[in-house]
Amino acid sequence: MRQNPARRAALLDAAIEVLARDGSRGLTFRAVDGAAKVPNGTASNYFANRDDLLTQVGGRVYERLRPDESTVADVSKGPRDRSKVAALMRDLVERISAFPTGFLALLELRLESTRRPALREVLTRQIREDLDGNIDFHLKSGLPGDATGVVLLYLGLNWLILDRLSLPDVIPEAEIPALVDELVERVLGPGLAES
Amino acid sequence: MRQNPARRAALLDAAIEVLARDGSRGLTFRAVDGAAKVPNGTASNYFANRDDLLTQVGGRVYERLRPDESTVADVSKGPRDRSKVAALMRDLVERISAFPTGFLALLELRLESTRRPALREVLTRQIREDLDGNIDFHLKSGLPGDATGVVLLYLGLNWLILDRLSLPDVIPEAEIPALVDELVERVLGPGLAES
Repeated sequence: MRQNPARRAALLDAAIEVLARDGSRGLTFRAVDGAAKVPNGTASNYFANRDDLLTQVGGRVYERLRPDESTVADVSKGPRDRSKVAALMRDLVERISAFPTGFLALLELRLESTRRPALREVLTRQIREDLDGNIDFHLKSGLPGDATGVVLLYLGLNWLILDRLSLPDVIPEAEIPALVDELVERVLGPGLAES
Repeated sequence: MRQNPARRAALLDAAIEVLARDGSRGLTFRAVDGAAKVPNGTASNYFANRDDLLTQVGGRVYERLRPDESTVADVSKGPRDRSKVAALMRDLVERISAFPTGFLALLELRLESTRRPALREVLTRQIREDLDGNIDFHLKSGLPGDATGVVLLYLGLNWLILDRLSLPDVIPEAEIPALVDELVERVLGPGLAES
């Protein structure tokens, strides 16, 4: 397998676009080569087979969604209250929404994983690690709310983004920021566990 | 177009199974005929074209998920408090999870709708009507919580079901009932709008 990291990343980026545009059934080495504008046969030099390609796409989406250093540094500025979390979550929704093909490609992978146990295992690990990382970061930052609250944010925000990217007229665009604020306000308040 | 309602429903049920199994790209009239175990050419007598078939599948999924009369009648028994809502929501999660191909077919339709404006319009209307129906039913039943709370339940429960059906090890099965209870307890409590 070839190892040029920039070329590999470019091929994975092309695979993301192909998945979002044509679905998992449209994802062939030839389609990836075409989308990456490289000679036919290039993708097959970088990935052992289609499964190898599929399992690497999820990691690339997460890599591209990672917050930059200034976003992380902002967390420790000012009071760490629920309105701080709401601002962070509104930014997160915008960051994910600004990369719609990444979110849609991950969904295609989820659906494909119901048919491919190896892919399911890799995706489960990536998503659970990301969720655990969010819980850990949230609690260590001294932000309000508990681990359950972070899981409830993960659930609600993901479907909000899915609606926005797949059926944008179900929840009107203008209502999204206030809905994020309400979700944060409510799920990070006291729950059953503490009452 | 042929109009035998039972035959039409059976063809739509077969289309749901094909969508969940093979994705939207696998949905052809021939595949539907095969899954419905009817002679080739039958589906094409019931649906004008593939778009017509796709736009009718969503309606059929919702039809099959409609609660029965006893479930609806149960709402008015006993105190209408948050634990009543939690029990209803746990039942809802089980009802939808028990028809996994319906949920996965709807997701395939969502992804396909990013490429088909006519399908997007039909799906948006179905999903928004269902959500408005839930809000209306909730408020008229005298159950606790506001319209925003019902929208937040819709968001959180849908992604919980998606995780359960596509990547069942992200949220352990045993944690699901307590997570539903926490979501209900928190989002139906007082939010920003009332505070």
